[in-house]
This record gives sequence, C-alpha cells and structure tokens, in this order.
Amino acid sequence: MQKKDFNDASCPVARTLGVVGDWWTLLIVRDALNGVRRFNDFHRSLGCAKNILSARLAKLVEHEVLRTVPAADGSPYREYELTEEGKGLRLVLLALRQWGEANLFEPGEVRLGMVDKATGRPVAPLEIRDADGRTLGLDDIQVQTLPQPQPQPR
Amino acid sequence: MQKKDFNDASCPVARTLGVVGDWWTLLIVRDALNGVRRFNDFHRSLGCAKNILSARLAKLVEHEVLRTVPAADGSPYREYELTEEGKGLRLVLLALRQWGEANLFEPGEVRLGMVDKATGRPVAPLEIRDADGRTLGLDDIQVQTLPQPQPQPR
Repeated sequence: MQKKDFNDASCPVARTLGVVGDWWTLLIVRDALNGVRRFNDFHRSLGCAKNILSARLAKLVEHEVLRTVPAADGSPYREYELTEEGKGLRLVLLALRQWGEANLFEPGEVRLGMVDKATGRPVAPLEIRDADGRTLGLDDIQVQTLPQPQPQPR
Repeated sequence: MQKKDFNDASCPVARTLGVVGDWWTLLIVRDALNGVRRFNDFHRSLGCAKNILSARLAKLVEHEVLRTVPAADGSPYREYELTEEGKGLRLVLLALRQWGEANLFEPGEVRLGMVDKATGRPVAPLEIRDADGRTLGLDDIQVQTLPQPQPQPR
C-alpha cells in the first residue's frame, strides 16, 4: 500500500492517522488500555505477525504513545506502558466502539462495551458540544482554518 | 500487510476498524463530511493512487457508509454521498482530530479545526459521561462483556 507522510498536514485528523492510522496500531492501543503490557500478550490477543507487531510497537514508542519500562515483577522482560498522550486515545477508541455498536451489530448480539467502573453501566454516547456545553448536531459543525491563539480580551 | 477479518469480532472497535480501519478510508470519510462528492475531487484532495481510492470507495459503498447518487447538476458522473451511518463517523473523526490537536501540534501552529457553524467557535473537547451525564475520567471506565438488552424494570 502506498503510504504518505502526514506529519506536516495541517489537518489534525491526517496527522493523527499518520501515527495511529492502521488497525493493528489502534488494536494495540485498545489492548494496552485494557491492561496488556507484554509483547507475547499483545501477540496472543491480536494474532498478527510478530514482525508487524514489533514494528507497530516501535512506532508507538517513537511517537510517545507507549513507553517501555522494566517488568513490574522483576523478570527480565520489558513491558509497554501507555503515556498520558496514549491514554488520551481512549476517546478515539470509544468513538470507534460506539459507531460499531450502533451500526455493525444486530440487536441482541453479544458485545464488549465500555462501562463506568463504579456502577457497571454503559457510558453515554459521545456528544458534540459547543464551548458553552450545549449539544450540537452532526450538521451544526464544520472544519475551518483556526486563527492562531491570541490573548483573550477580558 | 496481513489482514484479518474482524467482521465476527465481539469487540465493536475491531469490527469498526474492519470497515474504516485504514487511513485512506477515514480520510475519504473526512473529505465526504467536508462536502467532497466526486471521484476526481477525492483524488485531488488525497493524492492516493486511483486504484486504492477506487477500492476504498467501493468498500465504503458496500458497507453502506457511502452511497452513489446521480450528479446533482445532471452531468453523467455518479457522486458519493454519506449515508446516515456514514455521517455518524463525524464523532470518530472529531476524536482523532482533537487527539491530534492536543498531541501533535506545536503551540501557534496553523491548523484546521472543528467549529460551531453558528458562532465560528471551536467545539468543546469530547468528554466521556456516565448514563446520567456526569463526566468520567479516562481511568473511570473499563471494557466488559455487556449483557444482552433486557426490558428495564420500572
């Protein structure tokens, strides 16, 4: 597949996809968010070729989505840990998850879902809101070039 | 690249990535959300090989993310239009966008952003909320198998 370098794109979507834009990468992040830390455990979960997994993990470390740390149990393995930036991808995963739930499952089909740990209840569908917290519809928004941040008059 | 069929996965993230899980596909959806409707315009915007674009568009039509319609101006071209399901991917794109904005841009760098059409102000960062609308932190949630929907006791 032809690849393009999106690092200089002015579109944050393109730039993000340059980092996490293939399914293995996002599934690695999904597993890391679920507590997976070791190469062999990622491999067992994903079933992808080891060289692909290895390359994707290295790229995620390079982009500071993951970092490697010594194994928590003192064994000689290195483990992979999400950085704060990496943890922020939970929202991307949640958006992918909710779209899949709404569009790719039949009623009654068994599924994994995102729940509030405290109550076990599914989280609410993500909503787009304006700067004052009002809910916006999918057609109420558009993409435009943003002005560079200026000091706000008070 | 080895590909895996995610259509039967119980994880909605995996299933969604089976449909939209490569960057060209999500960039096509991004362009469609921004009003692009014709093959040549997608090609001009994305700069990817025509055979890749053609295959990705066909897949999106197959999965009912896009549909083809006669050209609005009566010309012999077919145009691509987002279905309602496809429009729902705006949330996925917004989540990708906001992560990119937060992590892949330097302060002051020119960027495209998502704004409220009515006011021109950037939309608020997406937030995870519980069923009652309370904001949840990234560590307050977890993935688990959901019970099949039951009638709610009242």
